Amino acid sequence: MTRISRVELTPVAFADPPLLNVVGVHEPYALRTIVQLHTDDGLVGLGETYAADDHLERLKAVADVLPGLDVFDLNGLRRRVRDVLTAGGAQVGGMLNLQDPADVVLSPYEVALLDIQGKALGRPVVDLLGGAVRETVPFSAYLFYKWAAHPGGDADEWGEALDPDGIVRQARKMIEEYGFSAIKLKGGVFPPADEVEAVRALAAAFPGHKLRIDPNCAWTVDTSVKVSRELEGVIEYLEDPTPTIEGMAAVARQTDIPLATNMCVIAFDHLKPAVLTDAVQVVLSDHHYWGGLRRSQLLAGICDTFGLGLSMHSNSHLGISLAAMTHLAAATPNLTYACDTHYPWKTEDVIKPGVLAFEDGSVQVPRGPGLGVELDEDALGTLHQQYLDCGIRKRDDTTYMRTVVPGFSPNTARW
Amino acid sequence: MTRISRVELTPVAFADPPLLNVVGVHEPYALRTIVQLHTDDGLVGLGETYAADDHLERLKAVADVLPGLDVFDLNGLRRRVRDVLTAGGAQVGGMLNLQDPADVVLSPYEVALLDIQGKALGRPVVDLLGGAVRETVPFSAYLFYKWAAHPGGDADEWGEALDPDGIVRQARKMIEEYGFSAIKLKGGVFPPADEVEAVRALAAAFPGHKLRIDPNCAWTVDTSVKVSRELEGVIEYLEDPTPTIEGMAAVARQTDIPLATNMCVIAFDHLKPAVLTDAVQVVLSDHHYWGGLRRSQLLAGICDTFGLGLSMHSNSHLGISLAAMTHLAAATPNLTYACDTHYPWKTEDVIKPGVLAFEDGSVQVPRGPGLGVELDEDALGTLHQQYLDCGIRKRDDTTYMRTVVPGFSPNTARW
Repeated sequence: MTRISRVELTPVAFADPPLLNVVGVHEPYALRTIVQLHTDDGLVGLGETYAADDHLERLKAVADVLPGLDVFDLNGLRRRVRDVLTAGGAQVGGMLNLQDPADVVLSPYEVALLDIQGKALGRPVVDLLGGAVRETVPFSAYLFYKWAAHPGGDADEWGEALDPDGIVRQARKMIEEYGFSAIKLKGGVFPPADEVEAVRALAAAFPGHKLRIDPNCAWTVDTSVKVSRELEGVIEYLEDPTPTIEGMAAVARQTDIPLATNMCVIAFDHLKPAVLTDAVQVVLSDHHYWGGLRRSQLLAGICDTFGLGLSMHSNSHLGISLAAMTHLAAATPNLTYACDTHYPWKTEDVIKPGVLAFEDGSVQVPRGPGLGVELDEDALGTLHQQYLDCGIRKRDDTTYMRTVVPGFSPNTARW
Repeated sequence: MTRISRVELTPVAFADPPLLNVVGVHEPYALRTIVQLHTDDGLVGLGETYAADDHLERLKAVADVLPGLDVFDLNGLRRRVRDVLTAGGAQVGGMLNLQDPADVVLSPYEVALLDIQGKALGRPVVDLLGGAVRETVPFSAYLFYKWAAHPGGDADEWGEALDPDGIVRQARKMIEEYGFSAIKLKGGVFPPADEVEAVRALAAAFPGHKLRIDPNCAWTVDTSVKVSRELEGVIEYLEDPTPTIEGMAAVARQTDIPLATNMCVIAFDHLKPAVLTDAVQVVLSDHHYWGGLRRSQLLAGICDTFGLGLSMHSNSHLGISLAAMTHLAAATPNLTYACDTHYPWKTEDVIKPGVLAFEDGSVQVPRGPGLGVELDEDALGTLHQQYLDCGIRKRDDTTYMRTVVPGFSPNTARW
């Protein structure tokens, strides 16, 4: 029986462009915690998660009780996490205020255990999840309004995008490099009419592509209904136009466009009220807060059972998470939408290159044992040093935005 | 990569006592199909399922396309089953008329694949399902009204049970031998008042035991409400008092006793309408028709998510199924009710004895690799010969009942 002998947690920071969103702008560095689970027989399992200080504290508290855990005992992992965590909310950064931290804290450990199981078996994680229903997983081009550079910094390769032309230019570059056939625009930054114009410009420039817009709850119910009517036949789904399950239900009653969410249904407790009110038609899963890969499969099964569509959400992430997302998506029959990913926006990683590549907008499922990716210890050290040096300890897009736009307040339900 | 090389399907018949129910009486033999999946590297996986002729035909059709299947490719199994099966209902015997045969046909093959996976890994199936949350699984004493003997046959060890005294006597014998602390009475045989009297007699005789009654939809909505009020505080749940989700919902609105079902919610398609109408409060899972162990875990997760209780249903079965049920129950945190089993009623089996034993009403999870049970080839041959000789090719309690009670018709919604 293979058991956990030691846990390593390494917070890292990696360069992130000035991407605009409803709560402000991405800081110069995004944070992640890299989890390494070591076993008594010399295997190492990898996981990746958020790195806000309070999350890191919870991860450490759980790490203390993991030695001795059988690597197949996912129920035991869950029990240990629940035993360690006290009640209370978890702010993991950005817009997600997760009510139940257990699934969030559990996630990277579960992924690491599956990585170890796969390595012990000589099997890719996708096999442990039921086998690949697709050998390549389609992702979407994730477009952002953005500045040309961070304040005082050099311009990045992407340039400025603050209007429809800039968004189309960004899309063209990203699609040329990655081959995406689905496009998501992160909205909630400008008045809805401007963002509708950007979506229409994308539709004109990329007529065969599937389109989505995600204003991160920037709109009222009435605005959401108005915009949805304007975009009928143009977008495949409308993501989180307005806050709360009740708000989304009110919009859903007045539009035929499927509503998607990663903001009002972000835990298992939210599913029943959402189903009872028919508030959303597509759930964006995210194994980082749905409790790992097997719990995400449960979510997928629930969506299948209750007639909900399934897509995949992304925060800024590195290669370990991309590998995990790809294995999960490959084993999930009803994940029929292209998954979101921030991957093109990053310039640094902690894994050795060569395994994860985009071709025609899709990533081939790694075929090596476990997740199929290998940690680059030098890169890990570099990004950990960057974490130590950058001083950021919790994602805070709003405060950073205020250094440029004094008095900025989040646009939630602003329009 | 371990692949399926050969499939063996062996229909067997085993002696069954004259147990009475809503549709008639158990015939002298109950049928099962024993599935053996052989791999190219010499492993054998076991499964057990129904054996009605049309089910056996479907199993055979699927068996033809399984060679070459990777033993971890559960999604591939599902795809092959769906490809082979044409649309249409599946009558698997007794009271279950299953709308979607795919999950039913898939089940024994999925269990056999998990058995092989466990054997390849040197791990019990419970570990593949997430690890044991309990080392022993509680089952319930499953009481039946019954005759002393089959017509023309010798009396069995249980004797007659046609009134409260007989039921209490039966319970006493079963509890003495097996140690059960939960008791289920199969009803739907006599007028409700008689069966309520039997439940009250059980409550008086076994004051510390949890009680349930299952009339298999013998009652109208009004009768169900009336009986439920009489049994408030006496039983832990009332199982399938009346037919259909609508009927159960009508009862649920008028009683505080949780309603359980294995008759109106028997496929994933039934869950949404049941949830929307709050028709049932406890689902009795059964891996034989919910599509195997992993799909039963999905059902468990759905019950957990939507606030439904979870128990476990049983048809007449042998040791392979008891092992599978035990592994599943051990890995399912929210399976908090004692599981049903017909095991005490059988006198013959296809597995080598010694692994599955009841102590204090519970079965210890087998710790050997896979399911942890071994086929007894001699016993298999004997029970297959019994199948060939007995002439029964589909369970038909009603026709058999009519050989004794001419003109008998099922009691469904009779009272």
